[in-house]
This record gives sequence, C-alpha cells and structure tokens, in this order.
Amino acid sequence: MLPLKNARFLKALRREAVDRTPVWIMRQAGRYLSEYQAIRSQAGNFLNLCKTPELACAATLLPIKKFQLDAAIIFSDILIIPDAMGQGLSFVADEGPKFSKVIAGAADVTNLKEITPLEDLAYLDEAIRLVVKELDRAVPLIGFTGSPWTLATYMVEGQTSKQFNKIRGLMYKEPQTMHKLLAHLAQQITATLQMQINAGVDVVMLFDTWGGILADPSYLEFSLNYMHTVVTNLRKFNKDIPIILFTKNGGRCISDIAATGCNAIGLDWAADLAAARALVGDKVALQGNLDPCVLYAEPKVITAAVRQVLDSYGHGSGHIFNLGHGIPADVDPKNLEVVLDAVRRFSPSYHDQTQMVQV
Amino acid sequence: MLPLKNARFLKALRREAVDRTPVWIMRQAGRYLSEYQAIRSQAGNFLNLCKTPELACAATLLPIKKFQLDAAIIFSDILIIPDAMGQGLSFVADEGPKFSKVIAGAADVTNLKEITPLEDLAYLDEAIRLVVKELDRAVPLIGFTGSPWTLATYMVEGQTSKQFNKIRGLMYKEPQTMHKLLAHLAQQITATLQMQINAGVDVVMLFDTWGGILADPSYLEFSLNYMHTVVTNLRKFNKDIPIILFTKNGGRCISDIAATGCNAIGLDWAADLAAARALVGDKVALQGNLDPCVLYAEPKVITAAVRQVLDSYGHGSGHIFNLGHGIPADVDPKNLEVVLDAVRRFSPSYHDQTQMVQV
Repeated sequence: MLPLKNARFLKALRREAVDRTPVWIMRQAGRYLSEYQAIRSQAGNFLNLCKTPELACAATLLPIKKFQLDAAIIFSDILIIPDAMGQGLSFVADEGPKFSKVIAGAADVTNLKEITPLEDLAYLDEAIRLVVKELDRAVPLIGFTGSPWTLATYMVEGQTSKQFNKIRGLMYKEPQTMHKLLAHLAQQITATLQMQINAGVDVVMLFDTWGGILADPSYLEFSLNYMHTVVTNLRKFNKDIPIILFTKNGGRCISDIAATGCNAIGLDWAADLAAARALVGDKVALQGNLDPCVLYAEPKVITAAVRQVLDSYGHGSGHIFNLGHGIPADVDPKNLEVVLDAVRRFSPSYHDQTQMVQV
Repeated sequence: MLPLKNARFLKALRREAVDRTPVWIMRQAGRYLSEYQAIRSQAGNFLNLCKTPELACAATLLPIKKFQLDAAIIFSDILIIPDAMGQGLSFVADEGPKFSKVIAGAADVTNLKEITPLEDLAYLDEAIRLVVKELDRAVPLIGFTGSPWTLATYMVEGQTSKQFNKIRGLMYKEPQTMHKLLAHLAQQITATLQMQINAGVDVVMLFDTWGGILADPSYLEFSLNYMHTVVTNLRKFNKDIPIILFTKNGGRCISDIAATGCNAIGLDWAADLAAARALVGDKVALQGNLDPCVLYAEPKVITAAVRQVLDSYGHGSGHIFNLGHGIPADVDPKNLEVVLDAVRRFSPSYHDQTQMVQV
C-alpha cells in the first residue's frame, strides 16, 4: 500500500511525533449534516444506506471533504452483525433499533447462525473498497464493529434499554449462556473485522457502548474479556493493525483496557483525560473526549473547552482529539468548525515541532 | 419522641454497634408486589396514589408488614416538587413522566413558582403524619426528595432522557441560568424536607439519579454543590437528622460526597463497596449495593451475592444493606425474601456481638 498523505492519526496511535493533534469526530457523517440527510433520503432509510455501497461510500467521504478531518470512518452500524445472523433488525422512527428475535436462553444461543462476512456482509466489503479507492490514501480509514457485550445487550433486550435488566438478569441466572453467546459474538466480530482489514481499512475500533453499565468485576468478565479475545485473535494475522477500544463509562477500568494489547482507548466525556494518561503511561494512545454538548454553546466557550481537553492530555504525541460521544443531530455544523479550528490552532504548541517529520 | 423499637438503621447511620446489618430496599413498596398493584388501582394512577394520604400510607406500610424491613420510606415521588411548581406533570403509560412546561432559558427560571410545602404538598405532610402514627415507632421512617440537579434534568428535558443533551447543552450555553435554577430548587427541596422532618420522618435522603451523567468537575459544580447547600441548610435547624445522599454512578466522587456533612452515601451496584469504605473511613456510613438483577437468579446465587456484598463492606457497623437501584417490577417477591433471609442469617458475624446493646 502507498503511504498516507496525512498520517497524523496513525502516528498518534503509535505515539510517534506529529505536528499537531489529529482529530476526527464520532458520527462525523451524521444527521447534523443536511448533505447526509439528502444521502439518507436517497437510500430510503438508515439500514438501506448501510447496505448500499455507493451511498455508504458517499456518506463516509462527506465529512472528509467538508471538514478535512484526519481520519475517515466507514459508514455502517454496529447492529449489522446481529442483522446478518438473522435476528430481524429494523429501525423504528424515534425509537431506535428493534430485533424481531431475542435471546432469552440457552436454546436461542445454540440456534444462532454463523455468518460468512464476505457473503452476509458483502455490502460492507464493497463499501470499504469503494472508499479506499476514492480516498486514494488521503487519510486513514477506520473500520469498526460493536463489542461482543454491546451486541449481546441489543440481542437480549431486543432494543436499546435504560436499565438493561434482561441481560443483567441472564448474566446472573445463566452465566454459561452469556459466555457462550459472547464467545460466539467474539468470533463473528473477529471475522468481520478481518474482512474489513482485508478490504483496506487502516485501523479498527470496537464500540462498547454498554460495558459501563456493569460493576467492574462483571465488566472484566463479560465485556473486556471478549474484547481481549478479539484483539488477540486479530493480532495473530495482523501484527501491526492499530486497534482502538471504546467503552462508554469505562473510565474505572482504564488500566485493564490498556493491558489487552490494544493501541488506543477511546474516552467518553465523563473520563478525566489527564488521570487516564497518568494511569496508562506510554502503553496506549488516548482518544477523546470533549463533551458533545459543548457544541451547543457560543464559539468562545467551545474554543475554551477544546483548549481544556488539549491541556488535560498535555504535551507530546498519543492523543487523538475527538468528542466523548457521537455528535448530536441538532448541532450546528458551524460549531464543529469552531472545534476543528481550535484543535488546529492550539494543538501544535503541545507537540515538539523540531523532532517532527513533516506529514 | 419515643425511642424506636427497632433502631438498627439509625444506629448504623451513626456507625454505632448493631446486632446485624440493617436492611431496606429502594422501591420496596413497588410494582413487584401484587398488593401494591391493588392499592394503585384504587388510586386510579400513580400520581393520585402519591396525592392520597391514606393510600400513600398503606403503600408505605405494606412492605414493612410483609417483610419486617428495618426502615420504612414514605411512598411518594421525586417529581412532586416540580409538579407543585406548576410544571404540569403527568405519567404516560410505558413512557414515564412528562412535563407540559419545560425550562428552555433564563425567562422560564424567572417565572418559576415558589412553593409553600405545607399548602402545595399538604398531602405529603398528611401521609407522613398518618404513617408515623401507624408505625408507632416500630422502625424509622425515611423522607426524601430528588436532588436539585436531578429535578432540573426532568424540568429541562421535559421527560426522562438517554443523552440529556438539552440540560447539558444549557449548562454550557447558559451556566448562570442553570445555577439560578439549581439554587431555586435547592431552596424548594430544603423547605420540603423541613416539612417532612416536622411531620415526623427520622431520616432524609436525596436521590440524585442523574448526577452521574456529568464529568467530575461539572458534577461537583452543578450537582453536589447544591446537595451540599441542602445539607448545610437542613443542618442549621436539625442538628441530628441523618442525611443520606445517593448519586447513581457517582462512585468517582465518593470523597467529595462524604465531605458535604451527610451521614451516609448510597451506592449503586457498579460501585466497589470495599474501595468506597477505604476512601471514606469513619466519616460516613454506606448504603447498598446488591445488583437488583441478582434477584432474577436462583436462591443460591442470590445468597452468595448477598454474602459478597456483606463481605465487601467487612466487619463493623456503618453498613446499611440495600439494592444498588430500585427493585425491578418483574422480580418474584420470594426472591426478595431470599435476600432478606441471607442478610439476617449472615450479617451478625460481621458485628461484634459482645459490644452491642440489644435493639
């Protein structure tokens, strides 16, 4: 593969010197952009958009062209894996995802389909190949999946939840069923990420949206344990692929996450970036963690908050600027420009410009 | 006032010797009890039940008679204060609380009504007086309100939320509006708790259900700060009233919570009880924190989990056994009996029986 024209993001993931802090934004191709709304209308609905390679490619590239971000992330959804497993995914307006089948016990796990990513998720493979071609090595491309635990929450609850009582109940009632489900999902996730790597993504990320609802020992046993499996299995055949793990509300277990062999940890807005860096030292890079709701404020408040995040990480490479969660749908895109402008203006002073190879 | 027949709960709050760990259960008079469902039907709906003193009294006493718990908690809801302020509260089936008016900016805060608890919440005063009479000092009675921040979340969002973008947006956009709202709520809450104390409650508790959605500095500034105000103002006229603060997902700030002058901290299921005790030392008692979803499991799993919580706190007084969140509506009441039985059987060994005055 040709070298990247802008390799800041990859360098920061390896904690190598950069001229400034790289930045990308979770849900950067999202509903806050009218251009995205147009692409989505063309697809008919969100799931069709994920499944139409040309449109998924257009959505992926949209924020790169508009904002010159330092990384692209393939437009997709964490729930396409359980969808391909035949769980009957649909998106109900204003209510989020729904599955027609739910996992209620051991028999449901035994009956789960094993997917062949190149067949069952061929549209994702194709979308990535289109994006790689279009990007032409301008910036790295991130591939992703949900974490085993997070996919399991949707598959057991049948939808998103406030309390997650069903899955936490199953965890206590039938821990072996949960372990069987999670081991199966870890396998499917590994295969799906391998397909994404083969198609050309430069980095992979696991989104563990719901690991943080667990007490620490349960988080380690039921969530991190299986992300660790995915990392270990990916490493066997992809020695150098950078892997980012993001557990929302996972701040208490930063050291354990860093010990999985991942390259970077994503932090939500509630995490303390300085404390996290002190804990992980030189082991991993850190990604985050501006509160997305800062983007509702005036430009000067936004700029001050960006500087605070940069200052919290401090001097040196190993920080990838991002929000602590996806950008909300009702944010003015101009306010995102304020964020990006502040990162570009103020982050160079946190990097030693003399040691740096121009990127 | 006459001495209590069962004072374990009060003794544990003061970290005085007890024969065994006291236990009560958040939402102990809840939907999991068919007897409660009957009382609720009589009231027509949940809000009417809160507002009908005889029925609220019956609901309060129901779990005391059925399970011989060590504390009663007045049957009420945290949202009756904004309701009394004229925000137009209703409960929509399966969707939870809704307010017809929402706080969107400074003008809405200026127009907020100041309540006179003895008039606007006369039904609560009357319900407490009825319960005090019926209890006849058998066990202590807990009064409660929501925290200023948590009431504000519902008043700004208009309902419960997954992301709380509106209130976090307002916090960044108009911090002074937020502070004005929170100061007003702290006043209303203090007055309402004072009325409850005057009516005869033995303990007061603040439920901060949504403080944990904030990063630590914001939590300290916008949530704990105003609970601190309530504690300080209550203390002026009620030197000895035990005060319990409960912030769900507030585990990172335990030391700050302990420094408010409260007597006990409620811990959710994700908190580490042993670590919390190590942090707070002899400063405050701790209440919690069995995962409510353990109650979906088999009796032997439940018993083992109860023993683990007792063991986590360790030897000595200062622990009040509770769940880490309200008991779910679909739990079998028999499984609650397994919890209570385990606390009664196994907790005496954590207390020095020779130092103890019989209660």
